[in-house]
Parts: sequence; structure tokens; C-alpha cells
Amino acid sequence: MIYDLAIIGGGPAGVTAAIYGARKALKTLLLTKDFFGQVGKASLVENYPGFPKITGLELMKKFKEHLKKFSLPLKEGIDVDSIRKEKNVFEIKTAKNEVFTARAVIVCAGRYPRPLKVPGETEFLGKGVSICATCDAPLFKGKTVAVVGGGNAGLQAVLELADYAKKVYILEIGPKLIADEINQERAQKNKKVEIILKAKTLEIKGKNRVESLVYQDLAGNKTKELKVDGVFIEAGYVATSDFLKGLVDFNSKGEVVIDPKTGQTRTPGLFAAGDATDTKYKQIIIAAGEGAKAALSAYEHLQT
Amino acid sequence: MIYDLAIIGGGPAGVTAAIYGARKALKTLLLTKDFFGQVGKASLVENYPGFPKITGLELMKKFKEHLKKFSLPLKEGIDVDSIRKEKNVFEIKTAKNEVFTARAVIVCAGRYPRPLKVPGETEFLGKGVSICATCDAPLFKGKTVAVVGGGNAGLQAVLELADYAKKVYILEIGPKLIADEINQERAQKNKKVEIILKAKTLEIKGKNRVESLVYQDLAGNKTKELKVDGVFIEAGYVATSDFLKGLVDFNSKGEVVIDPKTGQTRTPGLFAAGDATDTKYKQIIIAAGEGAKAALSAYEHLQT
Repeated sequence: MIYDLAIIGGGPAGVTAAIYGARKALKTLLLTKDFFGQVGKASLVENYPGFPKITGLELMKKFKEHLKKFSLPLKEGIDVDSIRKEKNVFEIKTAKNEVFTARAVIVCAGRYPRPLKVPGETEFLGKGVSICATCDAPLFKGKTVAVVGGGNAGLQAVLELADYAKKVYILEIGPKLIADEINQERAQKNKKVEIILKAKTLEIKGKNRVESLVYQDLAGNKTKELKVDGVFIEAGYVATSDFLKGLVDFNSKGEVVIDPKTGQTRTPGLFAAGDATDTKYKQIIIAAGEGAKAALSAYEHLQT
Repeated sequence: MIYDLAIIGGGPAGVTAAIYGARKALKTLLLTKDFFGQVGKASLVENYPGFPKITGLELMKKFKEHLKKFSLPLKEGIDVDSIRKEKNVFEIKTAKNEVFTARAVIVCAGRYPRPLKVPGETEFLGKGVSICATCDAPLFKGKTVAVVGGGNAGLQAVLELADYAKKVYILEIGPKLIADEINQERAQKNKKVEIILKAKTLEIKGKNRVESLVYQDLAGNKTKELKVDGVFIEAGYVATSDFLKGLVDFNSKGEVVIDPKTGQTRTPGLFAAGDATDTKYKQIIIAAGEGAKAALSAYEHLQT
């Protein structure tokens, strides 16, 4: 069976695209690893309009319930291995060698923060460890936090956190920050911010929640410990849309380049939405909106 | 007092922008006529992820409740008369000659469907009369509907409705349809669609819900009546952002031209989001996402 539309990814962008596809009466298929992705890891979501306070897991459950009102096939546990376009049909091959075909595809495969791979990182996720300063900064009002990573994302996180926290450490493994000068200057001017260079994070410690961060001071080669209530990991992202190689353009961050009005990639019929793309801001409500755009564009594409 | 950010409009884009502004700790002010706008008129919203089935009014109440978690000033009953930029501050003057000032502004003033101004139009809104085929088409499965307006929006509505309805009339007041050829051809090919030209809609009739549409046949100059379950009004839109003249570019539809990645207009510090803009698709979830983008862009602008 050739579907009208195959959607890859079950986060906010993918689920919204599927809702729109189903409502447009397209034969729609959704392929995903799971329905939680990055949102499921958010301890508290306070910026998805309509839900003043909800855990990431609860919100994604609501998305999934909404989707289930439509009787479209949802395939979970799927890793996409490759996509190719043959005439006007896309062939999607999974890691388990299943093959699905569709006349249009929307890729909403998200992105994953590069892990530090230190003890405590996974254990305390949502319990003081965060991967989204924009989401979680207000939860750390009056607290002490550390940001790991001295690039632009790290500095941006530092500045957002400084609006709420009483003290913000930033740890960079190299001998200097690598963020744009303007961000560095702002951080240096801010009295709440303390920059620690040549610092290699070794462990995040605590009982029920984060209590401290242990790092190796590479200058003196000593182990040091900072008392902190939160740790924000900003060590970059791992691209997850490698399977699109040859069909789309990637920017320098490995993000899929799209037309921001339609979600169209450079291959007709192949769309992308959400955090996998070069959209400027990575937020649940934005990803959902972009998923709707891509589905409406795919619908138009299928009419021609 | 000079606010950091003034938001004009209390629909999905404006409320989302305000939530994001407040969370970024910006001194944010929201000015709006009301909190319902076009969404409040939607009988049933089934495509805002997280709420499988909710009236437009209920959804906007939830948005407003969410916003009220933040203690930012909300001014209702406001009609904006003019905006001007003096050095780096925007001065917003209302119809009642109040003046508000802010360093950044996001305009989310929406758009309004051009009314037919016939009896029954307002009375049956949400009871068979609809202004959004994408929203309401699935509610007319197996029914007979009429679309008033033979432009691209009207034809698009016809094609969307034909996926669900058993019969779709399209009424155009002129001697021929004015939509793109491709849309006309598709409508002509579709056996469910009947095109009625030189038809001037006179009245929408019914008891509790729409039962028929009365029109004047301008060719024979006779009055005729069609039995229908629904009437979709597609007579164009009225622009509502005239007060931005001189500060922004408008496209041919009177929509504010923005950078789709940031919501930035051609005046630095002045942003726009939602249905007032040249965003391609007008949908609640898309407007909300665009509101978030504009607020995050305004935040960045205010840091520089």
C-alpha cells in the first residue's frame, strides 16, 4: 500500500502533522521510536498555551490521546534507516528492514542533546538536570545553577538563568569561551555569573535532587566540587536526520534546511518540521505549529 | 512607564507572545479589544493538539487563564489608533487617546472575514455558518453545504469540503470564478461540486440551525433557494493592521510582511505574528507558534 503521507517522529511536530494529515482525509502513516522524545523528559512545561502547568510526559500523553481519535496507523519502536525517492514515491526503510511507501513525507525526527556521559546526568534529569534553559529557568528562582558548555547555547542559557537564579556558574572544558563576543561580554558584566575555564565535568551528585557538580580543574589538575541546585547541559546537539543525506540540505549544525513558510526541503514532496530543522527557536508550541504547516503544504503538494 | 514589550491582540498569537514575554522576565503589556477574536467564534476546534474536542470559546478561556498566572497588565476594550517610533521607543495611541510606550512591539491584531451582511449570517455562526473550512469540514460529513465566494479561498474551501460533504455548491456573484485555473479545474472535475454563477446571496435561513440559502439569480433575476446544512463564507478578509502604515510592508492582501523565522517587520523592534501577517496558513496552532517566535525575537532584540 502506498500512503499519501508518512510522518517520521512522534514529538509535538510529528503528532500535529498527523492530526492535520488525518483531518485532510489523507491516508497518513506515523512512524516513530516513541511518543515522548525530548518533551517527555521535561520536568515541567509551563509555556504550552492552554496548560499552565503540566509535566512533559503528561503533555505528550495528551498529544497521543488526541491523535488516537483518528484511526491512522501508528508504528512505534521504529528506527528509520534510509529514505529514497523513486519516481514520485518515497521508500522508507527501517533498521529492521521493513519498507513503507508514501507520496509525501514529513520528517520530525527531533534532535538530541549531546550527553556529557557522566554519572548522575541521566539519573537527575528532571530533578535538577535540565536540557532547556528557556523551559526551566523560572524553576530556579533564587537558586544556584551551573551551565556546562561555553558556546552560544551555553551563554544564552547563562543569561536566561541570570534573570532568575542568584548565582550561575558556567563551565567550559577549553581555555576560553567559544560563544560570540557579545554574549561573552554580557556574561562577564553580569555579577551573578562566574566563568570557570578548563573545567571538565566529572559527576553530578545528590540524594533525591541535584546537590553538587564535581569537575576536574585541568589547569591545576585538581578535583573540585560546586554546590548547585541545578545543572544545565549545553554541550551541543546530535543530529538525528542523517538518513536524509542526499535528499535535503543541512546547515552547519546538521539541521535540515527548510522553507520556513511551508516546511518544504529541497526535494519536492519531502518536508521537515520541528527541532530537526533550522527553525530558529526550539520550543514545543513552535514545533507543533511547524508540523501543521508542513502537513498543509504536503496536502497542497498531493493535489498537484 | 516604558514597557519592554507591548503586545497588541489577545488571540492565540498575542496570548502566546505574552506568556513567553512574561517568562523571559520582560516588563510586558497586553492591549486587546477582547480575548476571543476569530477563535471564539469557532463552534468546535479539533486541531489544537492536546484538546481533541473543545469549543473556540472554551479554548480561548483556557489561554486567558494560562496568561493570568503571570501578573502582567492586560488592558481590554482597546482599539489601537496609531503607532509611531521615536528614537528607540514605540508610542501606541488608542482610539480613546490613551498612550502606552514600549521598547518592542508585537502586533497580533488578526484579521476578520469580510461579512456578507445578509440576514442569518451572524445568527447561525457556529450553527451551520462557518468561516473556516479547514476547521469545520469534518463536521459536514455526508451533508450538503454551500460556499459563498469564487476566489481561491472559496475554491480551496470547496475542495476541502468535497472530501467530506455529499454535495457542495459554490456561489459566485460575478459571471465567472476568479480562482486560479488549477483550482477551477479541480472543482469542475469533482462530481460533488455544483458551480452557480451570477448568484447574489440574500439570506441564510433555518430554525435552530442552517436549513437553506436564498440567492438572487442575477441572470434570470429570480429568487432561488438551496436546501443546505452549512454555509461557508469566503468573501475575503478585512485587514486590521492599518495603524501600522509607514512602519511595515503590506502584501497585496493587506497582510503584514514578516521574516518567517523571527516575526520581524521592516522596522527594528516591531514584530508581528498570527493571522495579521503573510504567514501562509491561518490556524490556531500556527498562530500560537508564531507568537512564541516573535516574543523570543523581541527578547533578543531587547538584549542588544
